[in-house]
Amino acid sequence: MKKLINQPEDVVKEALAGMALAHADLVNVDLEQQFIVRRDAPIKNKVGVVSGGGSGHEPMHGGYVGYGMLDAACPGAVFTSPVPDQMLAATKAVDGGAGVLHIVKNYTGDVMNFEMAAELAAAEGIEVVNVVTNDDVAVQDSLYTAGRRGVGVTVLLEKIVGGLAETGAPLAQVAELARQVNIQGRSMGMALTSCTVPAAGKPTFDLGEDEMEIGIGIHGEPGRRRAKLASAADITETLTTPIVEDLGLKAGEQVLAMVNGMGGTPLLELYIVFNELERILKGKSISIARSLVGNYITSLEMAGCSITLVRLNDELIKYWDAPVHTPALRWGR
Amino acid sequence: MKKLINQPEDVVKEALAGMALAHADLVNVDLEQQFIVRRDAPIKNKVGVVSGGGSGHEPMHGGYVGYGMLDAACPGAVFTSPVPDQMLAATKAVDGGAGVLHIVKNYTGDVMNFEMAAELAAAEGIEVVNVVTNDDVAVQDSLYTAGRRGVGVTVLLEKIVGGLAETGAPLAQVAELARQVNIQGRSMGMALTSCTVPAAGKPTFDLGEDEMEIGIGIHGEPGRRRAKLASAADITETLTTPIVEDLGLKAGEQVLAMVNGMGGTPLLELYIVFNELERILKGKSISIARSLVGNYITSLEMAGCSITLVRLNDELIKYWDAPVHTPALRWGR
Repeated sequence: MKKLINQPEDVVKEALAGMALAHADLVNVDLEQQFIVRRDAPIKNKVGVVSGGGSGHEPMHGGYVGYGMLDAACPGAVFTSPVPDQMLAATKAVDGGAGVLHIVKNYTGDVMNFEMAAELAAAEGIEVVNVVTNDDVAVQDSLYTAGRRGVGVTVLLEKIVGGLAETGAPLAQVAELARQVNIQGRSMGMALTSCTVPAAGKPTFDLGEDEMEIGIGIHGEPGRRRAKLASAADITETLTTPIVEDLGLKAGEQVLAMVNGMGGTPLLELYIVFNELERILKGKSISIARSLVGNYITSLEMAGCSITLVRLNDELIKYWDAPVHTPALRWGR
Repeated sequence: MKKLINQPEDVVKEALAGMALAHADLVNVDLEQQFIVRRDAPIKNKVGVVSGGGSGHEPMHGGYVGYGMLDAACPGAVFTSPVPDQMLAATKAVDGGAGVLHIVKNYTGDVMNFEMAAELAAAEGIEVVNVVTNDDVAVQDSLYTAGRRGVGVTVLLEKIVGGLAETGAPLAQVAELARQVNIQGRSMGMALTSCTVPAAGKPTFDLGEDEMEIGIGIHGEPGRRRAKLASAADITETLTTPIVEDLGLKAGEQVLAMVNGMGGTPLLELYIVFNELERILKGKSISIARSLVGNYITSLEMAGCSITLVRLNDELIKYWDAPVHTPALRWGR
């Protein structure tokens, strides 16, 4: 196992310590309870926005804690859900009296634990609403999730909803916007290689030298099918078509597009995929009004990419463009 | 070869097309002459700042074109120097009458071609100063370079010098600051894996399952030595000690520290290395006043990292903190 680590069991703890040092101007890290929180939390009368999930997907979610995005993030062990106590501690840390939104990727462990955390928080008098993302069009039910998985839309939703929360909007409105973004978004991913969870020490799955996996989840869960290697043009088409169809995107509409690297793919290749994506959408008279190209929701060192499209309207554009200042996304301040 | 590409010979051209589409608000890409330029270039009476080098190191240099950093970047083929004509075209495109600075990594092809470009520009009446970076402490002379190689300092220098150039400072002052940053900076890198140049189709070098290469250049040139895999703590010590010694860093001094991923290393691991780096420097009473952790100067999908330290003073901090708005670095606006 070739990794820049010390002991496998210390990976998350040490990475969080490094993160705390690198971004001390923006976040505090509670190393004991294991959550990352805005330095200025709790903010009075502002809805707290909390997310979380297994580690190994960085910069998601810890890299999105800061002004205009998340108030706190709860990282679990690598590819393992965080626990309710951790989520409760984060929820309490960001509660400014206006309630807390939990943004939960549809993954059985995450959903169950965030529900429990919401109940525990309610018992302590904190109003919590959980919104679940389920944007992966690749599979309906997978090994670890009933229904569609929550993937790339989560990142874009955290930005847009965080923008609204920053204005002091009430919890019901913030939660409703979260549901809207999820409804308007779809994703699909593919892998050229597997990845190795430090505690496991060997690749999660095997792929032949001439094979790729289409429709992967972010933990390397099985996808739609295994296929022979193809060109960037063909791969982009394979990922984009189901997204466009499932969303029912029509000529004249505009989208927020993310071409996301899974962790081990050079930026050079992601721009090639973006070029193909723009060509395909242009052919359907769909315009990319906003975009992100880079590593935003990864699977350790996996090579591959995912594409996410969110149908835009004026409200979504407004909160996407709003200022953000986090370790991984920053603009407007 | 597992890559998200179409034909190997089209990789750079298609990636540049994707970049142009993704960042149309910031840059224009001349696909014929192959350079990336600020949308608002040339800026009257502002020194133009130009860099360039082989592709495959993204986001360097194209990702650093924009307000407060580079005015233009010239990408060559993958791991291959750009040509003088390309550099000349970029130089002419950014010349606002105050002259142009070329930031050149010490790599024989780059140095030779940028010198030729400077002569060609001079013949057309444009004043050009070339400043060469040579921060790699790993080796004195390598396969492709006489003297030390230019690596990570180049990124930090482009930011700092770009900040000064934005103020309207004259060429001599901008060039002198570039020399100062280079003098105050050192880097060293290591690789856990090799990488594959698309046109070659196979890895640049071979590393055993239990081996790593210490002191690599960004093209995977041979380093100081091949070694058995080690812990993140040991690797960080191995990279940091020669940097600190070569720079003559003393207790009480402060540095700008970059922990850079080579392209295929998860962010999680880079934060672990940053945590170790902070511990080592703290032990020497050297403080990290500013930092970057992420993929900033890569070698395609290579796994591994490099560490760069720049000794800071008030002037360097001022221009590091100055606003920047490029595809890959953005703050303050």
